[in-house]
Amino acid sequence: MTVTQFPVPVSSRMAAVRGSAIRDLLTLTARPDVISLAGGLPAADLLPRARIAEAVAEALTDPAAVQYGETAGSARLREVLAAHESARQHRPLQAGEVLVTSGSQQALDLVARATLDAGDPVVVEDPAYVGALQVFQAAGARLVPVPVDAAGMRVDELADRLAAGLRPRLVHTVSTFHNPRGVTLSDPRRRELARLADRYGFLVVEDDPYGLLAFDGAPPVPVAAHGTRVVRLGSASKVLAPALRVGWLTGPAEVRAAVERLRQGADLCGSTLTQLVAAELLADTAWFDAHLARLRAAGAARAAAFTGAVAELLPGVTCSAATGGMFCWLEFPAGTDTAAALPAALEAGVGFVPGSAFAVDGGLESAARCCFASHPEGVLRTAVQRLAAVLTGRPT
Amino acid sequence: MTVTQFPVPVSSRMAAVRGSAIRDLLTLTARPDVISLAGGLPAADLLPRARIAEAVAEALTDPAAVQYGETAGSARLREVLAAHESARQHRPLQAGEVLVTSGSQQALDLVARATLDAGDPVVVEDPAYVGALQVFQAAGARLVPVPVDAAGMRVDELADRLAAGLRPRLVHTVSTFHNPRGVTLSDPRRRELARLADRYGFLVVEDDPYGLLAFDGAPPVPVAAHGTRVVRLGSASKVLAPALRVGWLTGPAEVRAAVERLRQGADLCGSTLTQLVAAELLADTAWFDAHLARLRAAGAARAAAFTGAVAELLPGVTCSAATGGMFCWLEFPAGTDTAAALPAALEAGVGFVPGSAFAVDGGLESAARCCFASHPEGVLRTAVQRLAAVLTGRPT
Repeated sequence: MTVTQFPVPVSSRMAAVRGSAIRDLLTLTARPDVISLAGGLPAADLLPRARIAEAVAEALTDPAAVQYGETAGSARLREVLAAHESARQHRPLQAGEVLVTSGSQQALDLVARATLDAGDPVVVEDPAYVGALQVFQAAGARLVPVPVDAAGMRVDELADRLAAGLRPRLVHTVSTFHNPRGVTLSDPRRRELARLADRYGFLVVEDDPYGLLAFDGAPPVPVAAHGTRVVRLGSASKVLAPALRVGWLTGPAEVRAAVERLRQGADLCGSTLTQLVAAELLADTAWFDAHLARLRAAGAARAAAFTGAVAELLPGVTCSAATGGMFCWLEFPAGTDTAAALPAALEAGVGFVPGSAFAVDGGLESAARCCFASHPEGVLRTAVQRLAAVLTGRPT
Repeated sequence: MTVTQFPVPVSSRMAAVRGSAIRDLLTLTARPDVISLAGGLPAADLLPRARIAEAVAEALTDPAAVQYGETAGSARLREVLAAHESARQHRPLQAGEVLVTSGSQQALDLVARATLDAGDPVVVEDPAYVGALQVFQAAGARLVPVPVDAAGMRVDELADRLAAGLRPRLVHTVSTFHNPRGVTLSDPRRRELARLADRYGFLVVEDDPYGLLAFDGAPPVPVAAHGTRVVRLGSASKVLAPALRVGWLTGPAEVRAAVERLRQGADLCGSTLTQLVAAELLADTAWFDAHLARLRAAGAARAAAFTGAVAELLPGVTCSAATGGMFCWLEFPAGTDTAAALPAALEAGVGFVPGSAFAVDGGLESAARCCFASHPEGVLRTAVQRLAAVLTGRPT
């Protein structure tokens, strides 16, 4: 028998799936001398390790905490999340209407797989959350970018495209404290988006991991409160800890049923243990409210330090207004190439994500996303000084 | 503006994805008066909760334990798994050659998505692991069943099909202590399967969550030791605890790269916390060896009690030889319909999975899968008495 050589089979669809420049950058920025503004990492010093340790110890008194769990999530966590989302969405939700996922990223992936056929048009914001682009590319979707301005997605442009015949299956939006743009979809646009979904038959995917990080403590009313054709995604990663891998979704029953069925094959179920921890921390309202207040106060102080330093040290650079979340979007003078400047910036000890990484069809070369949440104020100022040295030629 | 009614969009592919009868049954069998032999659940009394509690407390002294982690898995866990797999596969593996996944189920799903195009033929065992059928159906594959006998997959039949022109992209096998058949692929068949992969250019997906549960302590040499076209999947769920959600894969670099890229979109990363716990427990060789010895001894005693009770109380029923793992396969006399008998069995206080749930193209109506691992010996005997009352008309 002759042994012949065959290439290892790889799906033709893989060619459409871009890598995440951000996650690749995390490796580069892990050097201790580099201040990374690149990752979307919650502040390590504000992660509630002690409270998590207590909750783990308590959960582990029950053998069920380390056993397989239900695909849709632990019943206790679904109850807690239903109460939480009822308050957010201003309508009563039952535990059975919430599906727990492994971070909101898994919810996004399963929603895409559950609803899309190859070639289906999907509207994405431009610039977009890269994890959304990856998911829709992997599902074989045709990406239709709609721009974002200071009030979020240009829903008026979307309306024009719909009137002209566009029929997307999904419209994805990071509605609040946008990743990467830092902006929040205005209330009139939220209402209009929900109305367009009813009129044209698409689903809105409202991706909202940052809403509770409103510096003024008042998260906007979600798109999901304005209509029924909204799949709303939430996450514990930014308000408790990423390592719990707890996200969730609410939305139409058909989507929930399909997502639950796909999750049986995707990974059977999440971790009962970390789900019980999340349930305990979210249900401990006094603790959770105080914890959120700390996160918001720290975020506000850090954002102020960052935007103040940018205003002072980076003349000619536009910075998005920071009212919550984790990100600022910097626009350098036309002609700046932030991707080309990145190696020198890393050399100077600061990391960021070039705007082009978020562009759906190219462009955004002169922009950059900076995460202000991960570092204390003094470190952020040093980071901006280093940026200034590289991107404006000013001395540090 | 007229608001019209549109159906909620669902991917046309969902029609091909069956639900898991087993996971649906878990709900029915959760009644306290029912002894469930249905789930593939490790014994709750043998899950190492105290050791996990220690490891969690230790891990939580480092803020990185609750932060986002690398998509490919925690560096420490990859090191530990590389050492483990090097010993299993009898060849040196580096940490970079191991990808950590959320259980081996996620590895299976990502491998399918990374390698398959719609319509690609995939060889599956018949009866098959239902989680594999779901994954390949979701990927749009064309399933090609090959039967299983007492020595595992009929590799001779596969060879005939290949000689006749079949060109699968993947061949999936639960090589050791098969789910649901309980059998183990013989060593000559393992060598032949690896050789056929080289000759015909497919990839073997060697799904091996049970290998370490060999009652005699000697897991078979894996298919992956015999060739390079093997993606090998492992799991901590059956030897540590399901709620860690730790699985892993080794295999060709092209597959690993594609899987890692897809995982960025699928769920970003797993839980750093539970990965550090798994690393600590697997690296503590003295503890892990003693723990495995306890699991094997308990499994052997339970299997003996179950098969003994079947031989005594279910005359005319064939039971697979139990040499490890978690499952026995019962074949009732021709004409028995185990699915039809299930409601009465649940009424009598015993649950199992009808054989037809594992059939690729129908059939297997007179068979049943029983998990002997979840209950102590006395309870297993009671369960078989209840089965006998329903399925043979004998009194309990």
